[in-house]
Amino acid sequence: MEEIKVFAPATVANLSCGFDVLGCCLDNVGDDMLVKKNDLGRVQITKITGQDLPMETDKNVAGVAVQALLEAADSKQGFDIEIDKKIKAGSGIGSSAASSAGAVYAVNKLLGEPFSQKELIAFAMEGERLASGNAHADNVAPALLGGFSLVKSYEPLEVLKLPAPSDLKMVILHPHIEIKTRDSRGIIRQSVSLKKAINQWGNLAALVSALYTDDYQLLGRSLKDEIVEPIRSILIPHFDSLKGIALKSGALGFGISGSGPSVFAMCRGEETAKKVYAEIEKFYADKTIEFELHLSSINPQGIKEYK
Amino acid sequence: MEEIKVFAPATVANLSCGFDVLGCCLDNVGDDMLVKKNDLGRVQITKITGQDLPMETDKNVAGVAVQALLEAADSKQGFDIEIDKKIKAGSGIGSSAASSAGAVYAVNKLLGEPFSQKELIAFAMEGERLASGNAHADNVAPALLGGFSLVKSYEPLEVLKLPAPSDLKMVILHPHIEIKTRDSRGIIRQSVSLKKAINQWGNLAALVSALYTDDYQLLGRSLKDEIVEPIRSILIPHFDSLKGIALKSGALGFGISGSGPSVFAMCRGEETAKKVYAEIEKFYADKTIEFELHLSSINPQGIKEYK
Repeated sequence: MEEIKVFAPATVANLSCGFDVLGCCLDNVGDDMLVKKNDLGRVQITKITGQDLPMETDKNVAGVAVQALLEAADSKQGFDIEIDKKIKAGSGIGSSAASSAGAVYAVNKLLGEPFSQKELIAFAMEGERLASGNAHADNVAPALLGGFSLVKSYEPLEVLKLPAPSDLKMVILHPHIEIKTRDSRGIIRQSVSLKKAINQWGNLAALVSALYTDDYQLLGRSLKDEIVEPIRSILIPHFDSLKGIALKSGALGFGISGSGPSVFAMCRGEETAKKVYAEIEKFYADKTIEFELHLSSINPQGIKEYK
Repeated sequence: MEEIKVFAPATVANLSCGFDVLGCCLDNVGDDMLVKKNDLGRVQITKITGQDLPMETDKNVAGVAVQALLEAADSKQGFDIEIDKKIKAGSGIGSSAASSAGAVYAVNKLLGEPFSQKELIAFAMEGERLASGNAHADNVAPALLGGFSLVKSYEPLEVLKLPAPSDLKMVILHPHIEIKTRDSRGIIRQSVSLKKAINQWGNLAALVSALYTDDYQLLGRSLKDEIVEPIRSILIPHFDSLKGIALKSGALGFGISGSGPSVFAMCRGEETAKKVYAEIEKFYADKTIEFELHLSSINPQGIKEYK
């Protein structure tokens, strides 16, 4: 195999109670990437469309992630990487993670799969380190594994794939304002009250139970965040109104996607999701902020190959 | 039905990463309780053996819990309660919870079950409030429901029963030193670092996943506590040595039971549990502290009726 074209999905990290440990994979929002072997013995980013991003390998998240993989594999193989960015940078739905994850997935395939999907996570995290200064896994893991991912621990890195109830839909609103992940992390307090932490881990534990038991209502009751949302939501225009609209329209839960500014409404079933989508669209239509809306299933597979 | 005799089991709360939200039920450690209807229109504690505990209804955890139930049921029925305490007070394996849970279970049965087991939790919590000043549910819930319980939230009270892998055994060491729950709570810091809180909820989420997937090794890797154990373990003689011995002997995990001083070793299978039991017994034999050791399965049922 000399080349491969893949779909690199967007992802929603944190999911309210799962700050820094939980994420899920979207199905119809993502980048296209074409990766080809070359004879140059080095990795180069040959084309980027859709976004203005660094072409230098060392400054591009996909380039850095692939170099980390090649070093671990002790491979001198060169690659050309073309990226058609459809996920906007800074959207909060894992734009950098999609590029990093898609690139390592593709290169691993072209090398004959020396690494498992779980092993690829650590390489893709190097792209995240470049993008935000923090090698977090809560976007790259669901992009690579699909469904819901739990980052159990970083030292050592251990990621679990959790089951995804089949009828879940995500409505994503991306208001076109800029919040850098780096800045968004900066406003979070580095210590939390024990009481709130206990509430948070009670909710996260219940959410995991809900995923295993297909209990949509419990899932909804667990999507709470007393620690990060009260602070970060201040940066997101009309957050409280949007949350009220989503829940009133039947969403199970509503929260910030990653570090924002995108927000998500988790819904049971297409019909409810369409209603939530329509109500959010109506509400945002007369605001002065440009926006994008997505409606997606949970993608159980992660990266997909175009045949 | 005029009288009922029940076995009210001991329980292990917290379980390392599940501080204040998780607990499990033991199978062969517990109190016996005999509850009879009387014609006096009031609840009285008629006999307590095995421990020196208050006989006044308002000062006895079982009395207080039953009164809370009767008030909610709007019942004037009187009851005589006899308690044969086998769980030592202050042991950290839910002594007060067993009395409260056993009493409300028995009275509910004698009244024709106006309440579900889950509804009984709130009444039993009133006994905990009397015992420790804090109406916690992480002992009474597993005593009433059996298996593993998760206290998702207190406001509103929501408790989930989680599955218990069938081959789990608990070895419990109760060193006979006194730590009051009230004091043991007092030394815990009321704020925690966000980083440690994230590690803790990552571990708890993984532990819940392990319970659903019968993944004993993951269960073991999840039994970590960076927040409470480092502080409370100081009060428990030889904690670090005991932990080392238990893990070296094959235990999946080791931690403090409730607020101590009891400690638990969670093991897969009878054989490993017996080895852990023997090694702990050997180690503690020449210490100057009296102690008790238990080896128990997880009790999937909770309170049991004697037929």
